[in-house]
Amino acid sequence: MSTIKRRPGRRPGSADTRGEILAAARKVFAEKGFDKATVRGIAREAQVDPALVHHYFSTKEGMFAAAMQLPFSPDLVYSVVLDGPREELGRRLVTMMLTVTSEPETREPLVALIRSAMTHEQARTMFREFITNAMLYRVADRLGIPHLRVEAAFAQMFGVLMARYVLRLEPMASAGREELVELLAPTIQRYLTT
Amino acid sequence: MSTIKRRPGRRPGSADTRGEILAAARKVFAEKGFDKATVRGIAREAQVDPALVHHYFSTKEGMFAAAMQLPFSPDLVYSVVLDGPREELGRRLVTMMLTVTSEPETREPLVALIRSAMTHEQARTMFREFITNAMLYRVADRLGIPHLRVEAAFAQMFGVLMARYVLRLEPMASAGREELVELLAPTIQRYLTT
Repeated sequence: MSTIKRRPGRRPGSADTRGEILAAARKVFAEKGFDKATVRGIAREAQVDPALVHHYFSTKEGMFAAAMQLPFSPDLVYSVVLDGPREELGRRLVTMMLTVTSEPETREPLVALIRSAMTHEQARTMFREFITNAMLYRVADRLGIPHLRVEAAFAQMFGVLMARYVLRLEPMASAGREELVELLAPTIQRYLTT
Repeated sequence: MSTIKRRPGRRPGSADTRGEILAAARKVFAEKGFDKATVRGIAREAQVDPALVHHYFSTKEGMFAAAMQLPFSPDLVYSVVLDGPREELGRRLVTMMLTVTSEPETREPLVALIRSAMTHEQARTMFREFITNAMLYRVADRLGIPHLRVEAAFAQMFGVLMARYVLRLEPMASAGREELVELLAPTIQRYLTT
């Protein structure tokens, strides 16, 4: 494997290499946005062979989720969408979103990304491209429903996460997960059902 | 009226006086939050008599909306809630929110307030207290439904405004108002109906 690592004197495959790739990814995603960033460009920035990037991250989407320390990846979202009956899709998605954001350590990177997207144009472009092209459009196309309906579902969950964890509106901030699933799942179900 | 204005040499009731009261209101709301701010404290900050503040703004809620240049006031929200059949409440509220935010000039102050609430603790407290105590709880109590349901409706509309105007997700950013009303009104209607 040492042939695919250009910098001498560093062990390939170490945690350090993975960390360097992720640092390079954060830089390239921030500069180019999600759409224009490439595995090749990130490998160049990290001074490693593209094959090594592929070794750690099979997709650009997965690399983005890891670089931003998101509590979920597009792959997780697809598996939740596809893994179970369609009539329980709303319940599965709401449960997943509330579960992966329930711990402060896992949700803080997501909240930080959203905060930058709200206030910085570059971060906004990157977040928008990732959310739409890597997640929402693909879910919509897979389900055969209009993109707008998936964005309405996204808007509901985005608003709930902001109200619960950032604005901390009561009683939403303290509400139990089950109560929120009961309340929100029918909304998501309706949007994702033509 | 000159007896109720303490500073000499300035005409009471001028646009300037109203502007000074609003500037004082912004300062006091930011320092104390919405709940602890008082008309008396704002009058003191503006160096005018409280009666003059009442002359311009009948309620603290209205003063907050004017100070922050919000495109809607609690009074507008209540009148939309109460003015028409309950089974069309969702449609009326979604139409109102999309209409008052349709022009960049009217929605920018609201977006600016939300941005600060997302990033600054003081602004967040002020926004939270205003949203809950001055708006959502009162709407919920008036309709006789749990506070959590009104917050779910708020979260949906908050998420839509962020997706449409800040993140600018397509197709939501360019969708027509009528199409969005069709899509979103049943959600709001369901939350606000026990």
